[in-house]
Amino acid sequence: MAMQRTPLLMSKILDRGATVAPNEAIVTATAHGTRRQTLLETRNRAHQLAHALRAAGVAVGDRVGTFMWNGSRHLEAYHACAGMGAVLHTLNIRLSDHDLEYIIDHAQDRLIIVDADALPLLEKLKGRMPSVERIIVASEADDAPWDTGLPNPVDYEAFIAGQPTQYAWPEIDENSPLGLCYTSGTTGNPKGVEYEHRSQYLHTLTQCLTDSMNLSATDCLLGIVPMFHAMGWGLPWSALMLGCKQVMPFKYMDPARLIQLLVDEEVTVSAGVPTIWQGVKAIYEANPGKYDLSKLSRLTCGGSAPPPSLIRWYWDTLGVEMVQGWGMTETSPLATLSRRVMKRSQLKLTEDQQFENVAKAGQVMPGIEVEIFDENFNRLPHDGETVGEILVRGPWICSAYYNNPQPEKFHDGWLITGDVGKIDPEQYLIISDRSKDLVKSGGEWISSVDLENHIVALAGVAQACVVAQPHPKWDERPVALVVLKPGAEVARETILAHCASTFAKWQLPDDILYVDSIPLTSTGKMDKKVVRAKLAADGYQLPDQRG
Amino acid sequence: MAMQRTPLLMSKILDRGATVAPNEAIVTATAHGTRRQTLLETRNRAHQLAHALRAAGVAVGDRVGTFMWNGSRHLEAYHACAGMGAVLHTLNIRLSDHDLEYIIDHAQDRLIIVDADALPLLEKLKGRMPSVERIIVASEADDAPWDTGLPNPVDYEAFIAGQPTQYAWPEIDENSPLGLCYTSGTTGNPKGVEYEHRSQYLHTLTQCLTDSMNLSATDCLLGIVPMFHAMGWGLPWSALMLGCKQVMPFKYMDPARLIQLLVDEEVTVSAGVPTIWQGVKAIYEANPGKYDLSKLSRLTCGGSAPPPSLIRWYWDTLGVEMVQGWGMTETSPLATLSRRVMKRSQLKLTEDQQFENVAKAGQVMPGIEVEIFDENFNRLPHDGETVGEILVRGPWICSAYYNNPQPEKFHDGWLITGDVGKIDPEQYLIISDRSKDLVKSGGEWISSVDLENHIVALAGVAQACVVAQPHPKWDERPVALVVLKPGAEVARETILAHCASTFAKWQLPDDILYVDSIPLTSTGKMDKKVVRAKLAADGYQLPDQRG
Repeated sequence: MAMQRTPLLMSKILDRGATVAPNEAIVTATAHGTRRQTLLETRNRAHQLAHALRAAGVAVGDRVGTFMWNGSRHLEAYHACAGMGAVLHTLNIRLSDHDLEYIIDHAQDRLIIVDADALPLLEKLKGRMPSVERIIVASEADDAPWDTGLPNPVDYEAFIAGQPTQYAWPEIDENSPLGLCYTSGTTGNPKGVEYEHRSQYLHTLTQCLTDSMNLSATDCLLGIVPMFHAMGWGLPWSALMLGCKQVMPFKYMDPARLIQLLVDEEVTVSAGVPTIWQGVKAIYEANPGKYDLSKLSRLTCGGSAPPPSLIRWYWDTLGVEMVQGWGMTETSPLATLSRRVMKRSQLKLTEDQQFENVAKAGQVMPGIEVEIFDENFNRLPHDGETVGEILVRGPWICSAYYNNPQPEKFHDGWLITGDVGKIDPEQYLIISDRSKDLVKSGGEWISSVDLENHIVALAGVAQACVVAQPHPKWDERPVALVVLKPGAEVARETILAHCASTFAKWQLPDDILYVDSIPLTSTGKMDKKVVRAKLAADGYQLPDQRG
Repeated sequence: MAMQRTPLLMSKILDRGATVAPNEAIVTATAHGTRRQTLLETRNRAHQLAHALRAAGVAVGDRVGTFMWNGSRHLEAYHACAGMGAVLHTLNIRLSDHDLEYIIDHAQDRLIIVDADALPLLEKLKGRMPSVERIIVASEADDAPWDTGLPNPVDYEAFIAGQPTQYAWPEIDENSPLGLCYTSGTTGNPKGVEYEHRSQYLHTLTQCLTDSMNLSATDCLLGIVPMFHAMGWGLPWSALMLGCKQVMPFKYMDPARLIQLLVDEEVTVSAGVPTIWQGVKAIYEANPGKYDLSKLSRLTCGGSAPPPSLIRWYWDTLGVEMVQGWGMTETSPLATLSRRVMKRSQLKLTEDQQFENVAKAGQVMPGIEVEIFDENFNRLPHDGETVGEILVRGPWICSAYYNNPQPEKFHDGWLITGDVGKIDPEQYLIISDRSKDLVKSGGEWISSVDLENHIVALAGVAQACVVAQPHPKWDERPVALVVLKPGAEVARETILAHCASTFAKWQLPDDILYVDSIPLTSTGKMDKKVVRAKLAADGYQLPDQRG
């Protein structure tokens, strides 16, 4: 043995930020303002929470559920569970009670920490959570006094009060579980992804690389992506390790509140899905001169690809770099990333050329492999033309679902992502579509994402959603649902002519449907499953199939 | 099992740079210019070298010695050995033949790759390297034809010629050895530090953090620190992973060549000991307007602490940030680092205050622990006052020397560094001295480093070296050796008065000795062992002890 055998536990890096930057602020949005504590206070309260959880019988490996918005107490739960070796199971507040019942039972959560504000949603599960011994209710000053019929409830502050502020984090195996996050697939029950200490430790380091998200202790982070979604993209861990200021929006996700937080807290970096950034852009444009976003430096965009026109607007208007990341719950999530300049040869490119790269899903993170394969699992060339199934492997990529292996989602050590795309000679991954969202027309694939990005770049268009509709001859044909900006009028012919300037005739949508809004998933992506279901329920028929 | 069990092998990240930036340049200095190849060529040649080594009988775990300057073939040897699982033993070209004989035998090197230029030095060991089966000679176009009596010699190019350019890197245990580097201590035989795949992988990721050396694929790196010293501070690995342009100075280490390389190759980041940067500064100042260093962004300085006046000169004159790092062969080496702004609260400091921090050894890297202890191994407070022995632990810190455990250098899982220092409330490590270089006077410690930094800031002084001399009453008293700039005259009284402005009377040097130069170690640090030995050989006596 030549080097020390230090296990890669999150407890080895968790407390670091509070040590080097104890007075940095953790800011949580409230109904009418913000609530603030220091990073040292947050760390001390996390150690107290760990003591309280242990006193309540939580042992290494036990599951602790959270049913919480992004706020300081959710961060404390992250910190406490990871430190003590409990498994943080982040419950998605927006799931149906049917799915929640399944998940809580499947994970065998012993305790659930819940924001008082979300308590009524959990209340629906009364009598349907046999594994849960106790409910810990975190309430804000603005909340009405809470009352619940759920088992053995206790107030969060009472629960941790008087506990010591130093917990001796145990040395456990580095492959021990750290967190659980369930993905809601298109069919069947949600599937659990179990994060481990080693996988998350490596993910954290990688996220903080200069050539990754370039996070620094000098940053102020507004993490908008919910902490119940893929561990908030890992950002809470990175911020705790580095000692960043963190701003947490709680449930106040309307763009007006978000933009005000960006301004007031001098946020330098934020992260969320494209729809969030569409909303912030709209507020900014509607209020010329009102918002000073000069401190903001970059926005990480994930969940789905941001339209190139949106990326460019942020750069041209605000000098803000929109960083595109690609990944999923099963990939912890960061797998590839795209920034304006990612290698030396790109320094010489024009700004337009640089932004062509940002529109791609990006370059693979060190230590991760991304490849495209045909249906027989033969590797396909990186020629920027050939489209195939995207498979991923590496130390923070899922190898099996929790207590539900699903071997058909894996192949020879690789995760089958369900996304379809190509890799260009510059080694950029380009996502064509979710395989289930691709339009398969006459044996050829049409990317719904490409059509959407093109349509949304048209003046007057706020949102576009392209879905496949069944066709007796072509199997499927694309239909575009379009949301116009208030007061705008954009004719169907204008949209089709705009598409025809780039796409082949057979790739054009067969129909344009004007709608008021597009349904979103719990993670803010366009919910094409719901769109397709609604069209089916309405008895929608393609124009050339109408009687 | 929830996450993939991917071992942390260097082969998982080694080839990445050549994949994402195949056309980036690897530049090696030659007698009258440079020799260039692409990163892809370098990668392909490394795979060829691995095949040739395997054909020569090298198996996983076998030691391959290098006796080479920093150049493309040394980089290929790094790449090939790490990929195939051989152990790269970097021999220090500047060691005595006595030490080399010991080291080669202790490591049981099977092959040695040697630069033709350094062959005569290795020739002295003819008949004294029983483990060595073969010598591979790398020669440059400028070299005279080589001839050697060493066993079974072969030309490097002939050795790799015709081998395939794709080697299937084996999946070995992540704790397998990767490299060997011997440290030349003050007493006894050199001790070997064995680097492992996992330790170096984690070191590489950490070195590339924004809040560490902030390395990026957009950088052009001039690694001046020899690749035979602590794996070139790990920089070759980082640059290979990211896809940086690399410039390698070979044996041409005079400041005039180095500054020309910085200019011609548009170097953005470089790394070396303070004496190198003193030399570059002198050339720059002696040739006003001659050198355009506008591309240069930062210099990492390690090995010994750079004087604050030097740090400030680079910032004020060139806008170049001198980043101070602290570590040693036993710490892989990066343990702490100091940059101008390392946390958000420092953004508000004045430039002078920021540079006070840069003069410290810095903040500990994520995952590493640094603490100070008293002689009974009780932890000492981080008050910026209390001085103690510095101990380090973490996943890339040595736990025992190679086949020579030396348990007295370790305590309860910590490495005893041999450095003495304090930690301030901002969690900055401040090195007082090597424990063997501290002056112990009347029961108090005097830092030789503090005195040297103070003296060298005086106009007219080029270098200062403070060593202890024995004293019957005080045990030891400090003596300063001073090198003046050409033509300068600085009186002994001026130096003492300058010191008295900051230091207590009992801390002032008892004597000032004007010398022409200070002897340096093989790694470019002031060799205080030699200075002390020379004073003893000369029969030096302190002024108050002279007859």
